[in-house]
Amino acid sequence: MNFHGKNFVADQLSTGGGRTFRVTSPLTSAPLDGVFCEAGDADVEAAAAAAEAACTIFRETTSEQRAAFLEKIADEILALGDALIERAHLESGLPHDRLTGERGRTVGQLKLFAQTAREGSWTDARIDTALPDRKPLPKPDLRRMMIPLGPVVVFGASNFPLAFSVAGGDTASALATGNPVIVKAHGAHPGTSELTATAVRKAVAACGLPAGVFSMLHGSGKVIGVALARHPHTRAIGFTGSRAGGRALFDVAAARPDPIPVFAEMSSLNPVFVLPGALRERGAQIAEGLKNSVTVGAGQFCTKPGLVFGIAGVGLEKLRGTLAASFPEIAPSTMLHAGIGESYRRGAAHATQVPGVELVAKTKHAADASRTQGEPVLLATTARNFLAHPELAEEVFGPFSLLISGDSLAELETVARSLEGQLTATIHGTPDDLAQAAALVKLLERKAGRLVFNGFPTGVEVCPSMQHGGPYPATTDARFTSVGTAALARFVRPVCYQNFPQEMLPAELRDENPRAIWRLVNGELTRAAI
Amino acid sequence: MNFHGKNFVADQLSTGGGRTFRVTSPLTSAPLDGVFCEAGDADVEAAAAAAEAACTIFRETTSEQRAAFLEKIADEILALGDALIERAHLESGLPHDRLTGERGRTVGQLKLFAQTAREGSWTDARIDTALPDRKPLPKPDLRRMMIPLGPVVVFGASNFPLAFSVAGGDTASALATGNPVIVKAHGAHPGTSELTATAVRKAVAACGLPAGVFSMLHGSGKVIGVALARHPHTRAIGFTGSRAGGRALFDVAAARPDPIPVFAEMSSLNPVFVLPGALRERGAQIAEGLKNSVTVGAGQFCTKPGLVFGIAGVGLEKLRGTLAASFPEIAPSTMLHAGIGESYRRGAAHATQVPGVELVAKTKHAADASRTQGEPVLLATTARNFLAHPELAEEVFGPFSLLISGDSLAELETVARSLEGQLTATIHGTPDDLAQAAALVKLLERKAGRLVFNGFPTGVEVCPSMQHGGPYPATTDARFTSVGTAALARFVRPVCYQNFPQEMLPAELRDENPRAIWRLVNGELTRAAI
Repeated sequence: MNFHGKNFVADQLSTGGGRTFRVTSPLTSAPLDGVFCEAGDADVEAAAAAAEAACTIFRETTSEQRAAFLEKIADEILALGDALIERAHLESGLPHDRLTGERGRTVGQLKLFAQTAREGSWTDARIDTALPDRKPLPKPDLRRMMIPLGPVVVFGASNFPLAFSVAGGDTASALATGNPVIVKAHGAHPGTSELTATAVRKAVAACGLPAGVFSMLHGSGKVIGVALARHPHTRAIGFTGSRAGGRALFDVAAARPDPIPVFAEMSSLNPVFVLPGALRERGAQIAEGLKNSVTVGAGQFCTKPGLVFGIAGVGLEKLRGTLAASFPEIAPSTMLHAGIGESYRRGAAHATQVPGVELVAKTKHAADASRTQGEPVLLATTARNFLAHPELAEEVFGPFSLLISGDSLAELETVARSLEGQLTATIHGTPDDLAQAAALVKLLERKAGRLVFNGFPTGVEVCPSMQHGGPYPATTDARFTSVGTAALARFVRPVCYQNFPQEMLPAELRDENPRAIWRLVNGELTRAAI
Repeated sequence: MNFHGKNFVADQLSTGGGRTFRVTSPLTSAPLDGVFCEAGDADVEAAAAAAEAACTIFRETTSEQRAAFLEKIADEILALGDALIERAHLESGLPHDRLTGERGRTVGQLKLFAQTAREGSWTDARIDTALPDRKPLPKPDLRRMMIPLGPVVVFGASNFPLAFSVAGGDTASALATGNPVIVKAHGAHPGTSELTATAVRKAVAACGLPAGVFSMLHGSGKVIGVALARHPHTRAIGFTGSRAGGRALFDVAAARPDPIPVFAEMSSLNPVFVLPGALRERGAQIAEGLKNSVTVGAGQFCTKPGLVFGIAGVGLEKLRGTLAASFPEIAPSTMLHAGIGESYRRGAAHATQVPGVELVAKTKHAADASRTQGEPVLLATTARNFLAHPELAEEVFGPFSLLISGDSLAELETVARSLEGQLTATIHGTPDDLAQAAALVKLLERKAGRLVFNGFPTGVEVCPSMQHGGPYPATTDARFTSVGTAALARFVRPVCYQNFPQEMLPAELRDENPRAIWRLVNGELTRAAI
């Protein structure tokens, strides 16, 4: 494949600041086609200026125009065909079928968000009509709706080179609501990023939008990423990645003269609580589900269960035994890139060496370093030891989990109380279990964004009810989600129009309700005109 | 009046850390009754622990219970009778009728928020039912709603000793949604705060709620305020006050190991653009409205118009002339406290001394320092000079405004582009004016939270469509409002329940919709059961 390797700065291609880089495939450790150019300061400036200039036109486009734009991006991504899947496979090591599924999700998400933009309730339109005769003072006409924030910087994620990257959920959310986007491409999949950026750029042109609506820069997060986060035109940031990376961006954004919102999804251990009745009734099934959830995609999902809690006893012993028997059979699989592979090796080794931690099982197959393979590892310890070693509550990103046995439900509650914020928390239980564990469930509600009952946290639906975000450090802003249609709410803010003439109001707030959206009119939800 | 002067720590009264303070009345500079105790570290710890402990019960109360609680607070405030108004008058210097109105607003707000809690759409309930037969994977049942964040720290504001203080909008929003509140009382009105806290505490007891639902501490913002902001149990902060104070709290919250949201309303100049046609048609009326809006309440509203822009010409000259004639007649009035009086005197003097700034008018009456009076002052300069002196774009809190003449609409747009974020921006214009000023309006939309057409920004309605919040530094989080029913959204976050048994779900998400609230069910808004 041929890659120009340049930065997409509005309608220009830039060779950047002079530094270039190549990538090696985690599958083979061999270099891949393409020499990529790191963006320079001038690219940051030009992309930001173009985004700011594009704001004025882009924010005035109709929801229908933006919906058509998102759909066009989806079509252009599909039109890239197998080349996209193949390059993503070589760059990420993820299997073809997984990537084909991820492309489907990416395209589906663009189309769903197009539909959400059209449907219009993301505008949260509210109208309170005037009461000119009110005493002691007349009440003015007040109308309020969400408007775009302005240029949004999106950081591509390594573990979803399509669905959380150049044209992923953050980009789709920002564009759907009228915000220009500047993507900081992830350094592990620049070729996949270039292909996707080409698709987005084609859609920008086909839809007649200003070129500044989309830019994509290569380069280091610490340099180019930080420069984008600091830029005065940047109005919000979307990020999926490490805790250190997300926190660094949060700190940069909070230290600005004008702080801006950062939606960083960072770190989650996704605790699973397996209660005694559930273990009795379907221990083998839970063991199978857990094994799969821990090791699917080489454990590189942000919702991978990294902590499994149970109450010491026969049921938990059996669960441990079943897992000890099945884990060795799982073949090591290629991780996303050498850095993640090395972090995983170190993280798993570190956890294994903590006093009081036992190795339950690991794969019986030797990992092939040249194929960047990670070995599935399952450890065990007691709740008491877990509490004594806070390092055990740090995420190990990869096919790794820790089985923790408590003496009692009360001890599990103590452990749950000690946990940091999580994307998900899971409970396996029978009705009898739950009757006793109501306090635990309520406790977990304060710790996590999504509570899963008798299931597994991997597998994140894209729908209105999804919540993918939780208390820190799961995300930097638990009030929002990065998956599902509510993700659009991240990049908007309300504006109130007081006594505005009809013709100066956005369509969403005009009396006749030309877009036929739901609105809160004088306190009542309605789609009727006024 | 008798004041115990103690800190309200859940159901205890604490004398605090040993330091005490008294207040003098801005009306007379004479000391007022009451010796007040600054809280100590132990009070912060005890209040936070009690709030955290109260969470578990309080978050499980029904909306009906919380609504009844808010209504009881309103009743107890009214039951304080004239004593509350009198003490607030002595402490704030605000006139009795203004305070009676403010009490009405405070009580009305509590009742409106009670109604909003009952009505239930703040929960943003969403349900996506399961598709067990979906291929390749079944879709789980997903249900999502807003839940309380946890203990909220509220800082009382000096300029609204009732409506933005102990039982003001922040407290009402947090309580309505199930969050315990710890108030840091404003140092200028500790007696008013004690009376109100007594009312809230009575309501807590009458409603059988855990005492930790409400605490109130006296003391310095830099000491007690910062300690509360840093406390691990604190989950969000509401603040109305100075830019320096709000930013300091924001910085403390952002630097926490687990950053928390800060809703600080800080600084706004509320620019007013008066276009030529409007000046021709109703210049005298605009002059009268402006004079009132600048000087009402001694200019101590956060929405006071501090900048008035026009295009040089006969109309603007006439406006200036009318204001020059009317300003001297306005009597100086008592400001909130000596510190604010002194800041105002310095701010107005500083602006007057900026090169190229002319004094248009000031009151002809000498201000009485012992009565903490602020002199109404109106200055003028050119747009070019305004741009050359950024210090002119800093808020002068008090009866002060600056008239700025530009050469052209284009120059006004340049000035508008240079402005920081604002709570409000106002345009006076005829249909012809607006046809030419569409770009200016769009520009102001990016600068402010509320756009006022042919009116004045003072006077903030409490209703669903209100937006009281704008880009930094107007507020630290432009995505939220501190006035109106949408204010409840500040203190909640979404949680998704996956495959939960009906009996474990909150009432809002159960099939039968027992609360009959609006919900988004499989993408459709409905109040129907499932």
